[in-house]
Amino acid sequence: MTKPLRIGLIGCGFMGRAHSNAYNRVSNFFDLEYTPVLQAACARNAESAEAFAKTWGYASFETDWRTLVQRDDIDAIDICVPNHLHREMAIAVAEAGKIVLCEKPLALNTADGQAMCEAVEKAGVPNMVWYNYRRVPAVTLAHQLIQEGKLGRVFHYRANFLQDWTIADDLPQGGTALWRLDASSAGSGVTGDLLAHCIDTALWLNGAIRNVSAMTETFVKERHHNLTGKMEPVKIDDASAFLCHFENGSLGLFESTRYARGHKALYTFEINGEHASIKWDLHDLHRLEYFDHRDESKLRGWRSIHVTDHGGEHPYMDRWWVPGLQIGYEHSFVHQVADFLEGLATGTPVGPTFRDALQTQQVCDAVLASAECGSWKNVE
Amino acid sequence: MTKPLRIGLIGCGFMGRAHSNAYNRVSNFFDLEYTPVLQAACARNAESAEAFAKTWGYASFETDWRTLVQRDDIDAIDICVPNHLHREMAIAVAEAGKIVLCEKPLALNTADGQAMCEAVEKAGVPNMVWYNYRRVPAVTLAHQLIQEGKLGRVFHYRANFLQDWTIADDLPQGGTALWRLDASSAGSGVTGDLLAHCIDTALWLNGAIRNVSAMTETFVKERHHNLTGKMEPVKIDDASAFLCHFENGSLGLFESTRYARGHKALYTFEINGEHASIKWDLHDLHRLEYFDHRDESKLRGWRSIHVTDHGGEHPYMDRWWVPGLQIGYEHSFVHQVADFLEGLATGTPVGPTFRDALQTQQVCDAVLASAECGSWKNVE
Amino acid sequence: MTKPLRIGLIGCGFMGRAHSNAYNRVSNFFDLEYTPVLQAACARNAESAEAFAKTWGYASFETDWRTLVQRDDIDAIDICVPNHLHREMAIAVAEAGKIVLCEKPLALNTADGQAMCEAVEKAGVPNMVWYNYRRVPAVTLAHQLIQEGKLGRVFHYRANFLQDWTIADDLPQGGTALWRLDASSAGSGVTGDLLAHCIDTALWLNGAIRNVSAMTETFVKERHHNLTGKMEPVKIDDASAFLCHFENGSLGLFESTRYARGHKALYTFEINGEHASIKWDLHDLHRLEYFDHRDESKLRGWRSIHVTDHGGEHPYMDRWWVPGLQIGYEHSFVHQVADFLEGLATGTPVGPTFRDALQTQQVCDAVLASAECGSWKNVE
Amino acid sequence: MTKPLRIGLIGCGFMGRAHSNAYNRVSNFFDLEYTPVLQAACARNAESAEAFAKTWGYASFETDWRTLVQRDDIDAIDICVPNHLHREMAIAVAEAGKIVLCEKPLALNTADGQAMCEAVEKAGVPNMVWYNYRRVPAVTLAHQLIQEGKLGRVFHYRANFLQDWTIADDLPQGGTALWRLDASSAGSGVTGDLLAHCIDTALWLNGAIRNVSAMTETFVKERHHNLTGKMEPVKIDDASAFLCHFENGSLGLFESTRYARGHKALYTFEINGEHASIKWDLHDLHRLEYFDHRDESKLRGWRSIHVTDHGGEHPYMDRWWVPGLQIGYEHSFVHQVADFLEGLATGTPVGPTFRDALQTQQVCDAVLASAECGSWKNVE
Repeated sequence: MTKPLRIGLIGCGFMGRAHSNAYNRVSNFFDLEYTPVLQAACARNAESAEAFAKTWGYASFETDWRTLVQRDDIDAIDICVPNHLHREMAIAVAEAGKIVLCEKPLALNTADGQAMCEAVEKAGVPNMVWYNYRRVPAVTLAHQLIQEGKLGRVFHYRANFLQDWTIADDLPQGGTALWRLDASSAGSGVTGDLLAHCIDTALWLNGAIRNVSAMTETFVKERHHNLTGKMEPVKIDDASAFLCHFENGSLGLFESTRYARGHKALYTFEINGEHASIKWDLHDLHRLEYFDHRDESKLRGWRSIHVTDHGGEHPYMDRWWVPGLQIGYEHSFVHQVADFLEGLATGTPVGPTFRDALQTQQVCDAVLASAECGSWKNVE
Repeated sequence: MTKPLRIGLIGCGFMGRAHSNAYNRVSNFFDLEYTPVLQAACARNAESAEAFAKTWGYASFETDWRTLVQRDDIDAIDICVPNHLHREMAIAVAEAGKIVLCEKPLALNTADGQAMCEAVEKAGVPNMVWYNYRRVPAVTLAHQLIQEGKLGRVFHYRANFLQDWTIADDLPQGGTALWRLDASSAGSGVTGDLLAHCIDTALWLNGAIRNVSAMTETFVKERHHNLTGKMEPVKIDDASAFLCHFENGSLGLFESTRYARGHKALYTFEINGEHASIKWDLHDLHRLEYFDHRDESKLRGWRSIHVTDHGGEHPYMDRWWVPGLQIGYEHSFVHQVADFLEGLATGTPVGPTFRDALQTQQVCDAVLASAECGSWKNVE
Repeated sequence: MTKPLRIGLIGCGFMGRAHSNAYNRVSNFFDLEYTPVLQAACARNAESAEAFAKTWGYASFETDWRTLVQRDDIDAIDICVPNHLHREMAIAVAEAGKIVLCEKPLALNTADGQAMCEAVEKAGVPNMVWYNYRRVPAVTLAHQLIQEGKLGRVFHYRANFLQDWTIADDLPQGGTALWRLDASSAGSGVTGDLLAHCIDTALWLNGAIRNVSAMTETFVKERHHNLTGKMEPVKIDDASAFLCHFENGSLGLFESTRYARGHKALYTFEINGEHASIKWDLHDLHRLEYFDHRDESKLRGWRSIHVTDHGGEHPYMDRWWVPGLQIGYEHSFVHQVADFLEGLATGTPVGPTFRDALQTQQVCDAVLASAECGSWKNVE
Repeated sequence: MTKPLRIGLIGCGFMGRAHSNAYNRVSNFFDLEYTPVLQAACARNAESAEAFAKTWGYASFETDWRTLVQRDDIDAIDICVPNHLHREMAIAVAEAGKIVLCEKPLALNTADGQAMCEAVEKAGVPNMVWYNYRRVPAVTLAHQLIQEGKLGRVFHYRANFLQDWTIADDLPQGGTALWRLDASSAGSGVTGDLLAHCIDTALWLNGAIRNVSAMTETFVKERHHNLTGKMEPVKIDDASAFLCHFENGSLGLFESTRYARGHKALYTFEINGEHASIKWDLHDLHRLEYFDHRDESKLRGWRSIHVTDHGGEHPYMDRWWVPGLQIGYEHSFVHQVADFLEGLATGTPVGPTFRDALQTQQVCDAVLASAECGSWKNVE
């Protein structure tokens, strides 16, 4: 018999859907000691909460997150709301002694993140942040190759996350759908939303970042605000880029923007090592590009690895279909749930924990500070 | 309130999983009048049937398909077993007055398929065959473009389906896992397994095929048989290719094989029209390649369309995540279930029906006959 | 001191330019015993011949090819005129005891080609046909890999040559620029023009073809004729495709057309062997795609080899620039001249000789005969 | 009758070959008033100079560049020697009243470059710097599209130039072949060698750069020196990256390195505008990637334009072969010579002039200064 893990989810938007889907599907594909049980969904609007609960199979719904956190029949709370709410909720969950899973970025800033880390560590509750891209099989494979030493000494790491959905200057800011454009909800713009993904992956694959030199820009200076009903200054960063030094001596180059016409969600990274290099691209997430200088000289070339093979060779893929058949974006969340449940069963923390995600927050803060002051900033 | 559609599924293998997953997910993503209810799974082996039912959430299981077909609490039977069993089962389901969904290819041959069509038509039961690739969004988009007349007169259609999993000559034939190599279960080799997919799509996109000239080959002449325990002649085709004329005057070229090293499931098609051309590839199924000669001369080029946009523009994609985030293989089944349920609600047959799939069977039979006799064969 | 090889060239069109360029450049890049000397260019129109000679640095010009062939100050005649003229000219050159280089295809048909072979062999003169694609470095590399046994047993060979320049039905036929559309000058359509290239490469890479089953089509049935001034039936094939068996047991699939919208000169081939596969594409001719099943399982993928490396590893590339910098179409002719001059110096025939090219002619004739009669034809 | 332009070339290395090839070929493909005449080649070593002159068809050779500059029978001097020699030579040529063409980068630094500009301007002699990539047809096409306003307001410009040839730490520095690793000959490392190309293109396509924030690195700290015979500190930059602001308000990101395993000469740029975006890559230099947001919504995608079309549509391509047949690296030099000769005939300066190239030098100096001091630097 499997054990239930009773989930309460706060926030019924895009991420609420992605997480709910993962909870629903994981037991169809993974043999695990724990089975997620969708106990309650929570949103301020009762109608939305009820509809969401019905669609996704939650047994009940709540409109007050504090009520949810206090319910005895719930083991874990999943926080899928705008960034400015993470701190208060996560600390409350920890204090209630419950498992806490939190959407990325961890917090509005390092100070908030630090408080959250202290809360979960003091309470001793399992915790995790949804930097889901680590669990795209091609990205996990990249991590394995690096761990095996396939690359040798690393010289370069570059990553970018390019979108184009905010170019129109008549797009408003604020409210349920567009809180990402409102600094009071989002904290920052693309730095926390997009660069944070790039940074999390980079720290995982290439280790800590020592210092950064950054540049940010807000191309559209004011937008109609959905909450005030007036034109308001735009306080988020529309684009953010930085140079950095990693602790291992390699150089980093990061960029994100929502003004790159032609890219919807182009998250790419490339790592150049002494012996081998790796590239990946979210737009074709089931492929990993790999170059190995140790190949026979005349046959050297970038290999396009279709990461769909079985038998334990390609991470996670033995759980799905047959070789050659690709999975998609949503599966990264299923894998993260599977790993988290496995960690619960064995009592092992599963990264990225709050503490891991705090490092990403620190880099983001250094980026914003460097962009503000125009000089290099240490990550601390 | 939605209405239940109570499903009984026969066959708990790869396709049983793919279909069960589709039934489980469709209501999370599509608003439909009908909701699939997983009533019973059926396999000859009780342990397998029970485990499968548990994993996928079927309320019960059966070991005798005839019992399943007679159950009053089931509305639709889904047949996911080897090809030689399709005829008997489908006819029994039709005679029991139930909806019947059948894995592709429809049957071992045209004669069997004809009997199946007559049975479902006589019984007046809704029916469908799982040629799932029509519902990959990029393929559906290709169909839309052709319907809109974007291509103009069509000159060429070419398709291939390339795999490499049977190259090793110590791979056995027969039994649960390898029935596709055993002609008594599969009927043919790659013709019915892989070419049938190419043909179904082609008929849908480009209309009927008039005649064919074909070539088949069996590279490994005998293999150990899992059921007899002896080396036995291999009677399936390992590779199959044909030239053809379509009714619309265009020329076709089709090829499939399990001996193309480097390809796991490379199903590609390309259509060349007077004004525009289209290409697609299952290995990157979320992309459609499109060339339009009417573009400004110096800017003409093949467009790589990332078929992940929203708002009704890209078929089905408004139901999933956000632009730029790809879905995968399994989603084609979800879409097929969604369309089928929509058809039930409106009383409209949803293709490919048994009758549609019979045309594919006729082309397959003409291919095998042409390869046998070495001359052109009309499709009839 | 190098020895001069005094060239007389007949035909001042596209191929006349490509060959002249090759003669002019070869000594800048290759150290050879022989140096081409551009002695005379010949065209029926004196003005054209003179202008061409001036542009390309020919010391003189002629308007009667028979005069050119008889000149004492010429060692080699290069025939760059429409196909129906090859036979008479080549035989005359051979009888004059001169070296003969002939544009592809060798002749209008096998009988003519046979006579040409007999003439050069009787006269004992060095001879070569301009199937230039063998000397694209990536193609030469493919040949090396096959010779080394990298592929193992070959199962499949497929090639196509796709263009789109004759789709417009108001394009006329005949005359200097459009003789390729006039059967009396060209013999056949795409079979001799495009498929012949595919066949030459295939015979070189994969050995002899045993038999073929073909289909041809003429999409536009009549066109204005530049010479008669009237609408005339189009007697060439606009598209040509065939299935075949190679002597080594592999299966072949070939297609060419001038009605594939979006392709200007897409010549591709793919070879699938037991251990490895190879792909190439004229549109990116400096790349070779290579898949090796012996690579570490999780790292298997198609390698995109940028065939621009030095040091003898990538054929011919040590003569050009630095690694990473690509060469183009015209260089294949320079390489063919270099090899031919090297062969002259060592007394070794350089393929494709007339005799080699006759095999391609035989396959073309079998293709046309099979298309005509609708059944398989042996190559003979 | 065409007029001769009598060329004297200094430096018989890689660039000497590339330029000589361009002079030799231009008249075969372009109709121009001026024809280059290869009058003399100059190198310190007599044997090298003589051999080079013979290979490339120079009428004579010299071993003292000052003698060459004073010869009456020479109209233009082409400087193809290491960077530290540019200043003295170029000024001497200008003072001799001759046309001067100079390899890139213009000089070791802005001060030297400024002196060179003043010399050519005072003397009133035509002058040009060999930033050849502007004349790759796809890059020229990019320039045309921007001039036409296809992109609208520009938000982002990113470029990198990645190589991997200096990773081995036993590679020595200095001497004829390896002067690029010796700061006394090269001035800087990849900044002047590779980034300079990226900067020249960027200034041409996107206008002036206002300020930069840079980072440089030397991965291998000391190498054997070919001239001193001892291990010596490496004073060049192995890698160089910078953030910048363009005058037009767009953000720039530039990177170059010789430590990117898997890249031989990967020069790429991407420009994101309000309406359209453009990408290019030297590894496939005959293609331009183009995305236009104004395309019909469901058909938007990156177009891969094969820049090989005729009729004046694709820059320069009407001079070469037929559509679909690619040219290579060396042709960019032919185009630059053609444009320069055209400019001579019409009396129009042809960019990049010395003055244009000085701007690139200023950006390079700002990059090196910013990397040194760790803060933003204005370009001046």
